[in-house]
Amino acid sequence: MSRPVVLVSLESPHSFWRLSAEHERSLRIAFPGVDFRTAAEEDVPYRLAEAHVYLGWRFEPSWLANAPHLNWIASPAAGTDHLPVAEAHSAGVALTRSYGFHGRPMAEHAMGLILGFSRGLFMSQRVQRNRTRWKDDLAAEFFDLAGSTMAIVGCGSIGGHLARAARAFGMNVIGVRRTPPVAPRAGLTWMHASAVHQAVAVADVVVNLLPATRVTDRLFDHRLFTACKPGALFLNLGRATTVDQQALLAALNAGHLRGAALDVSDPKPLPARHPLRLHPRVVLTPKSSTLCRTYMNEAVDFFAANLRRYLAGQPLNGLAEVPDAHSPLDGG
Amino acid sequence: MSRPVVLVSLESPHSFWRLSAEHERSLRIAFPGVDFRTAAEEDVPYRLAEAHVYLGWRFEPSWLANAPHLNWIASPAAGTDHLPVAEAHSAGVALTRSYGFHGRPMAEHAMGLILGFSRGLFMSQRVQRNRTRWKDDLAAEFFDLAGSTMAIVGCGSIGGHLARAARAFGMNVIGVRRTPPVAPRAGLTWMHASAVHQAVAVADVVVNLLPATRVTDRLFDHRLFTACKPGALFLNLGRATTVDQQALLAALNAGHLRGAALDVSDPKPLPARHPLRLHPRVVLTPKSSTLCRTYMNEAVDFFAANLRRYLAGQPLNGLAEVPDAHSPLDGG
Repeated sequence: MSRPVVLVSLESPHSFWRLSAEHERSLRIAFPGVDFRTAAEEDVPYRLAEAHVYLGWRFEPSWLANAPHLNWIASPAAGTDHLPVAEAHSAGVALTRSYGFHGRPMAEHAMGLILGFSRGLFMSQRVQRNRTRWKDDLAAEFFDLAGSTMAIVGCGSIGGHLARAARAFGMNVIGVRRTPPVAPRAGLTWMHASAVHQAVAVADVVVNLLPATRVTDRLFDHRLFTACKPGALFLNLGRATTVDQQALLAALNAGHLRGAALDVSDPKPLPARHPLRLHPRVVLTPKSSTLCRTYMNEAVDFFAANLRRYLAGQPLNGLAEVPDAHSPLDGG
Repeated sequence: MSRPVVLVSLESPHSFWRLSAEHERSLRIAFPGVDFRTAAEEDVPYRLAEAHVYLGWRFEPSWLANAPHLNWIASPAAGTDHLPVAEAHSAGVALTRSYGFHGRPMAEHAMGLILGFSRGLFMSQRVQRNRTRWKDDLAAEFFDLAGSTMAIVGCGSIGGHLARAARAFGMNVIGVRRTPPVAPRAGLTWMHASAVHQAVAVADVVVNLLPATRVTDRLFDHRLFTACKPGALFLNLGRATTVDQQALLAALNAGHLRGAALDVSDPKPLPARHPLRLHPRVVLTPKSSTLCRTYMNEAVDFFAANLRRYLAGQPLNGLAEVPDAHSPLDGG
């Protein structure tokens, strides 16, 4: 076997999403038998001819034609819907996502959004410049996390992190997924994806972590929002296409939902005057739930462990599910 | 000993701060030898003549003159600075606050405020109507709770609750108090009140839980804010008088502090055009950190346990410290 070539293109305006010289050095030291080469994103199509492995944020379907030796596309992202999963599969190229380290920032993000509603913090920020007294309004609306129930729809490894944070506040947690969990977790009730309507019916907080697949497309539709407990709070930290935004808006306007926090939207960003952007009970974040200052450290660790498996001829972790083969409701 | 009379006046526009018929019944069942009488707040001065014990939110100093048999004023509130502590002491009347159950809602409130800043949620809510893209600004400002440090100034039983919540997010926690804690707690570093300047110097988040006493008056002054780590976030969930608001404003305007969240203010409420109310990096909440739907259940439980001690001639829990005798830096 010739010396394997790993082409790396990890650029970003943000330092925590870039490969640093330190990361590069640690990879070279850990894998002396591997030829690591870095490329600016615009050069990737021309440099792929050399590569057996590609590590990068982006990969265009057309690039596959220029990559005769490519065996594996590794992404530091949690999701794969922006990547050519089906095309890579057809070309016999493995494609992996990364996991195990998005849960921590996403749990912080989700708990912050939930507490922002439950403690009346968003309400307070909205009115503090215009009103001097709003305690009675806040007292009418707030709720205690302790003793309340969270349903996590698409409860995989990220959901596990979120569940632990919610448990720390005394919440009951229902994890909804297609396949039963490997090991039962204390304080968590598992429900099968087919019972999602029952799960949301008892939840004060519904957190959507679903990936974008054929089965999950518009899964949160009018019927599912109507099934939610009146006064429930809805969070979407999954994929935008899993939610029917018109149905969400209708549930908010009917007062059926207490509020919504959306880290994703379709289109992205929402138009300037979109009713979800202007809605007083909607908080938007700019797909920032995975922001984490240590992101690249953890992504490089994940890649290094997977590269070791690759070199040993073992199956890779995080292989993307091919859309047509299988449709997960398990979350990231 | 004649049948002790307990006069109860627990009224509020909010159900969770009122004594319910259910609470009253449970007290009567638990204490068949006690004569419980309830009074509307405006009738309290006229009804105190009968009472050995008073349980209520308010107590005016002048009421003591009408209470010849009164032995004990019990408040369901955590703080006593709105109560005639010195006057009651002089009159030989015990005055107790309540504790052990404010920590849970206050920990939720504090973590929500912290995450609102750390995850850029307040920034997002502020700009979502006027801008379609702000991820780069958010990426420049956010911070991870995991691995960051919280200093809790006035770290008593409420601080213990907050510390546990912060630990669940992987924060390091420094508890500042005057007296060493009864039992050491895992993951907590204790520092003496005299070292408060060193504590805030290493903290990414400073939470003030100080009670109002002579020693704590304007304890957060220009010097203490200057001692804070640059970029620190400041929360006041203690008493307003413990903070020099002009010094806080100066620290915010100088960019030395990342932001501030204030559940209390002086005066209360702040004037309509007060610079802290209008400041883009200040979030105000209307003294809502202790709001809790189960408040009265827990306050009644606390009172019942104390009433048992009273009837057995044992020392009461939660006796207010007399301002001139002792000046705590221990928090609620």
